Amino acid sequence: MSNYNEMWRSLGLNMEAHDRLLQALPPTYHDVYLTQPNRPQGLEYFDFVVNEIHGLRIQELQEHKQNGGKVIGAFCVFVPEEIVRAAGGICIGLCSGIDIGAAEAEKVLPRNICPLIKSFMGFKLAKICPYFESCDMVVGETTCDGKKKAFEILNDYVPVHVMETPQMKRGRDRELWLEEVRDFARLVEETTGNRLTTETLAKSIREVNGKRRALRRLAELRKNDPAPISGLDSLLIEQIAMYDDVERFTGKVNELCDELDKKVQTGEGVFPSGTPRVIVTGTPMAIPNWKVPHLIETSGAVIVAEELCTGLRYFENEVAEDAGAMDAMLENVAARYLGVNCAVFTPNTGRMERLVQLVREYNADGVIHCALSFCDPYAVEANRVEKVLKEENIPLLKIETGYDQEDAGQLKTRIEAFIEMLG
Amino acid sequence: MSNYNEMWRSLGLNMEAHDRLLQALPPTYHDVYLTQPNRPQGLEYFDFVVNEIHGLRIQELQEHKQNGGKVIGAFCVFVPEEIVRAAGGICIGLCSGIDIGAAEAEKVLPRNICPLIKSFMGFKLAKICPYFESCDMVVGETTCDGKKKAFEILNDYVPVHVMETPQMKRGRDRELWLEEVRDFARLVEETTGNRLTTETLAKSIREVNGKRRALRRLAELRKNDPAPISGLDSLLIEQIAMYDDVERFTGKVNELCDELDKKVQTGEGVFPSGTPRVIVTGTPMAIPNWKVPHLIETSGAVIVAEELCTGLRYFENEVAEDAGAMDAMLENVAARYLGVNCAVFTPNTGRMERLVQLVREYNADGVIHCALSFCDPYAVEANRVEKVLKEENIPLLKIETGYDQEDAGQLKTRIEAFIEMLG
Repeated sequence: MSNYNEMWRSLGLNMEAHDRLLQALPPTYHDVYLTQPNRPQGLEYFDFVVNEIHGLRIQELQEHKQNGGKVIGAFCVFVPEEIVRAAGGICIGLCSGIDIGAAEAEKVLPRNICPLIKSFMGFKLAKICPYFESCDMVVGETTCDGKKKAFEILNDYVPVHVMETPQMKRGRDRELWLEEVRDFARLVEETTGNRLTTETLAKSIREVNGKRRALRRLAELRKNDPAPISGLDSLLIEQIAMYDDVERFTGKVNELCDELDKKVQTGEGVFPSGTPRVIVTGTPMAIPNWKVPHLIETSGAVIVAEELCTGLRYFENEVAEDAGAMDAMLENVAARYLGVNCAVFTPNTGRMERLVQLVREYNADGVIHCALSFCDPYAVEANRVEKVLKEENIPLLKIETGYDQEDAGQLKTRIEAFIEMLG
Repeated sequence: MSNYNEMWRSLGLNMEAHDRLLQALPPTYHDVYLTQPNRPQGLEYFDFVVNEIHGLRIQELQEHKQNGGKVIGAFCVFVPEEIVRAAGGICIGLCSGIDIGAAEAEKVLPRNICPLIKSFMGFKLAKICPYFESCDMVVGETTCDGKKKAFEILNDYVPVHVMETPQMKRGRDRELWLEEVRDFARLVEETTGNRLTTETLAKSIREVNGKRRALRRLAELRKNDPAPISGLDSLLIEQIAMYDDVERFTGKVNELCDELDKKVQTGEGVFPSGTPRVIVTGTPMAIPNWKVPHLIETSGAVIVAEELCTGLRYFENEVAEDAGAMDAMLENVAARYLGVNCAVFTPNTGRMERLVQLVREYNADGVIHCALSFCDPYAVEANRVEKVLKEENIPLLKIETGYDQEDAGQLKTRIEAFIEMLG
């Protein structure tokens, strides 16, 4: 990717640190992804996207900006992509899945904080993320204490707009959230210089729903035994969903699903039929955080669903397409996002119910709960998950881990023991 | 206090564990409190209250309950005491300031969680807190992730009502909070069986304001050099404010202030004039968490104010007494609580402004920021405090610590070096 050097330099990247990152990724990707057995051909596109993660896609963003377009970065599935897109903007998920720039981040953050937060602060402060440096605005939210307070600091380095996500799902919370969505729409109009129209918003809602539908189609295919695609590859696609071009991505996921349809018909899978089936749940796994899924799928199990923000929570609800007026459309957008079973909500009973349902629907043998270190919302909520799954006699393994590899051996031992117990 | 055994047994306390706690407290209290020089006489009452912490006050609660009264427990300055009191209830702050019942708590909570949360869960699960066991209801809030999610678990053991504290202070947040306060008033009416009237609420607002005024009078006296009372003793009084009888407590604080008035006139103080003056800010210090203040005041400084929830945030704002109708009164109550500079709010600029103001008003030489381990709201917000104080050339020491004593030596070294720098 050396031909991007000029672009990266013009973005103000720390070239040396960025080079180190780019050198570290391909061997990891090779070991984790390219050594998997029986990978579908349709993954070539996604391999290509990862290979060009800081190259071609960044170039596209720059071309978009040169044509007057705006780029809006986000860290959370609560930021309504429909609205950004309807105003001609591009919405991208920002880098936060790798231990990088920690020395810089720890100058402004406590040591004992969730690695995802430390990662995004490190990326920004050390100037290693070309997505971050392409953003005209970053949108934060109040889904957890660490992010909420870290956005105040991040705002020293890049303009951050914070959306207040409510903490319950009652009428008053829906009203508050609707006002947040309306404010966001106004802000996006100001930032992009483009007014939202009923036509552009309706189109954008359909397109983003189309992406969600393609991802749901992929998810549905994983209900088969043998599973036609690995959990690792599915997670990768879900991660890419957050920064790739919407229409192109949707098309490629559907093409892949066409291929998987055939595999299902012929009974082909990535692992033998009867392989223990696991659902992963917990904190988001931002790219390139593949640690736990890799350990699981090299320990004799297949992941059949991710009850994660980088997973089902991102695509299982659609925005209703029945509205004709702007107000009603924004209400539909707001309503869709409050359907997400995030641990910001108390209680988050929807998540527990959904998990039990998923275990049945996907014919899973067990659940692995992964919380990032120091993530209070999910680490504490794990107790609720444990309670409900115990009542349903569903085996559960609880893991807390960060982005480093120090505990990989110990985790592998625990995961292998769990899977053996399922088998 | 052996004559309370029957009462404690009837409350279902774990007598053995409770005995161990009762045996541990007096030596600590002696070392930290009773060895202080030049203590005002008016502290005798507060020493007595601490000595009877699980005795006489619990007996009063039991008598109140035998007469049909209700007891409502809380963990946060956001729970409106006025409303509980107006309905004939007693509102008490619950035990959370000591490392106890950790083995029990860690069965339901992650290891790496704020010690205050682990403490209250430990107290409940190990059945060591007679206040907890006296509660008809516990009121939680959504001020931080850890508490918010832990209340879901606590609700398995005692009925918990959670108030949704908003995360900003705009119109929509005020509306949401006002609805929360109205709901709380209705719930308190149901729980106590007593309707709120404009008379009872007005009276209760005046009484709780009276408590706040007495505490403010005490705070004002600490602006003098030499300070007429130690920070440790002031903190103790602020801690006791949360569970003692409102009227009696107010009277005793005012009596103490009469004594301190005279000391100020004669220039008497607890430490010599010119002793470095420090303001403590950060996470609440629940009784008996006196670790850092004790280290500070045995290292050559005097604490002149606590910008804490167990401090100024608890009493510096009053509920306006100008309303005649119930609705307007509840609006005044709601408005008062949103004036608290809690780190739940983003941004929490009011706290930064207030801190700078306090340093001037109290003629402080420096600020010590204490965050409990794993407390994201305050540990991350410490960066904002640092930024503002640096701009104002106000020295700052940042501390993160738990309830154990393991780091006491290291903390003392850091605190001594900081104070030496101030002197």
